Amino acid sequence: MSDLPRRVHLHEEGPREGFQMEAGPIASADKVRLIEALARTGLREIQCVSFVNPGRVPGMADAELVAQSIRKRQGVRYTGLWLNLRGMQRALGTPLDIEGTVSISASEAFSVRNYGKGTAALLDAQRTTLAFCVEHAIAVTRASVTTAFGCNLEGAICAATVVERVSQLLGLMDEFGLPLPILRLADTVGWAQPNAIASAIGAVRERWPALRLGLHLHDTRGTAMANALMGLQMGIDTFDSACAGLGGCPFAGHTGAAGNICTEDLAFMCEEMGIDTGVDLEALIECARLAEQIVGHPLPGKLMRAGTLERLRH
Amino acid sequence: MSDLPRRVHLHEEGPREGFQMEAGPIASADKVRLIEALARTGLREIQCVSFVNPGRVPGMADAELVAQSIRKRQGVRYTGLWLNLRGMQRALGTPLDIEGTVSISASEAFSVRNYGKGTAALLDAQRTTLAFCVEHAIAVTRASVTTAFGCNLEGAICAATVVERVSQLLGLMDEFGLPLPILRLADTVGWAQPNAIASAIGAVRERWPALRLGLHLHDTRGTAMANALMGLQMGIDTFDSACAGLGGCPFAGHTGAAGNICTEDLAFMCEEMGIDTGVDLEALIECARLAEQIVGHPLPGKLMRAGTLERLRH
Repeated sequence: MSDLPRRVHLHEEGPREGFQMEAGPIASADKVRLIEALARTGLREIQCVSFVNPGRVPGMADAELVAQSIRKRQGVRYTGLWLNLRGMQRALGTPLDIEGTVSISASEAFSVRNYGKGTAALLDAQRTTLAFCVEHAIAVTRASVTTAFGCNLEGAICAATVVERVSQLLGLMDEFGLPLPILRLADTVGWAQPNAIASAIGAVRERWPALRLGLHLHDTRGTAMANALMGLQMGIDTFDSACAGLGGCPFAGHTGAAGNICTEDLAFMCEEMGIDTGVDLEALIECARLAEQIVGHPLPGKLMRAGTLERLRH
Repeated sequence: MSDLPRRVHLHEEGPREGFQMEAGPIASADKVRLIEALARTGLREIQCVSFVNPGRVPGMADAELVAQSIRKRQGVRYTGLWLNLRGMQRALGTPLDIEGTVSISASEAFSVRNYGKGTAALLDAQRTTLAFCVEHAIAVTRASVTTAFGCNLEGAICAATVVERVSQLLGLMDEFGLPLPILRLADTVGWAQPNAIASAIGAVRERWPALRLGLHLHDTRGTAMANALMGLQMGIDTFDSACAGLGGCPFAGHTGAAGNICTEDLAFMCEEMGIDTGVDLEALIECARLAEQIVGHPLPGKLMRAGTLERLRH
C-alpha cells in the first residue's frame, strides 16, 4: 500500500452523467440547485452539463440555460462535456470553465457503432478541435481513453491496445505542441476488474512514467470501489465520480445501466484510509439525498443511508 | 497481487441474513425455493435459517419448518445459525448439517448492549456449548470475531483487540482439546475499510501464521468489494456472502444497516480475476432475481442487472 496517494482529486460528474440518463424531465432549476449544493462541499470541479445533440440526449437540451443559471463559487471549476467542435462552440457561449478535450475509444468497434467512424477518422476529427483550441488559446486539459478495459462489442481490451491509444493521443497533442496534463482511463461500459486496472495502469506507466493518470469508473457490475482501491494502491490520485452514484438507475428498470462510482462512498473510503479528499462528507451526503429527491427514485449510494463514521465517533 | 488465492470458498448466507431482516413475512415455501435454487449454482455451503428467539426475530419463527422442507442436494452443506445452546439444540432437531460454533464480539460494549453480558461472561457461556459439542461428537468448525473492525458504540476496533479476542477463542477451543479450522473476522456493522482489513489480518497472521482466516463483510458504506479485494490480495480464500446482497444485521442499531457483500458480484470479480469460485454465475443471477421477487423490493446486487461478461464474449 506504499503507493497510496496522500490526496485525491474528485471530479464530480453527477449532474452531467446523472441527469442525461434520467427518463423523465428534470427541472433546470433542480439541476442548478444540485450543482450549487455540490459546489459547497469542497469539491473543486463539477461537470455540469453536456453539449450534445438534444435529439439524442433530450435530458441535456437545457444545457445552456443550466450553465447560465449557476451562481458560481470562488475556487470551483464548472465544466461541461462535448463530443465535437460544434458542442465546444456551444459551451464557449456559456459562462462555464471551458477547456479543450481529446478522447478516443480503445475499441474500434465501439467508435464505429457510436460515432460512425473508426479510430483514425476520429483522431483526425479531433485535429479540428485542437486547432481551434490553439487558435483561441484554450487550454487542453482533458484526455481520455474510453472503453479502456472492455467493450460490449469487442470484448476485453488488452493493455497493449490501451498503450497504443495513449500513444495516438500523445502524438496528436504533440502535433500541436501541447503537453498532456493528465490522461484518464475510462471503464465506459463496466468491464474493469482490479487485475485489468493494474495491468492497464502498469503498461501505460512503464512506457510513460511521468504521465499523470486518472480513472473514470462505473459500478455496472459492482466492482467500482475495488477498481478504485487498485487504482489508489497504484498511486492514482484523480477520479471521476458522481454524487449518490448518479448516472444510471439500477432500481428503475433501466436494465444494465449503472452509475458512476459514487462520490461520497469513494470519498468516505479515501478519508477513512487517511487519504485527503478536501470534501465535507456530511455536506456530500446532503447532496446525495437532494439528488435522490430530484430524480424521484432511489440511487445506489450507500453512505447516504448509513451515515459517516465520524458522526458515530463523536 | 502475488498472494491472490487460486480458489475462493463462498459461504452463502442470503437466506438466513436476508430473510431475518425483512419487514414483511416471507412464505416458508419461498425460503425453501431460494435455498434449493442456490444449491444448484455450485455453492457448497448455504446458511438457511437462524434458531433465535422468534420474539426478537419473527422472520425466523419458521426455522424448523424451512429446515425440514429442503430437498437436499448431494455435496451441499445446509447450515444454520444460533447464539446459544438452546438454539443449537433446536437446530439438532432438524436435518441441517450442524456444526459447533464459537463467536465473540471484539467490542465489549456491543456484547453488553446486545447480549447483556461482557466478553468474559460470553466466553464462559460458550463453554457449555463446547462441552455439549464434545459430548455429542459434534465438530466445531466455525469461529468468529464479530465487530472486528468497529462498533457503533465503541468506535474503531484496533488490531490488538482483534488479536486478543482471537487468543481468547483459541484458548477456549484449547480447553476442550479442539483445533480451530478457520477463523472469521466479521465487519458486523460496516466499519471496515481496506487499511483496517489489512491491519487486522496482518496482526492475526503475524501471531498465528498457520491459522486460516475468512471474512464476513457488509456493504453498509459501500466498501465491501474493496475490502474483499484487500482480503484476496492477502490470500483470504473464504468469504461469507449473500445472494443479491440480501441481509443486514438486526442488531446494528441504525436504519442504514446494509446487506452482506453480494455473492454474485463477489463471485464475478473473483472469476474475472482468474480466481475459481466453483459457481455458475448465470444460475446465481437467476437466484438473485428470485430473491428480489420473493422480498418484493429491489436488492442491491449489480451483476443481476448488468449480466455477466461471459455472455457478451460469446
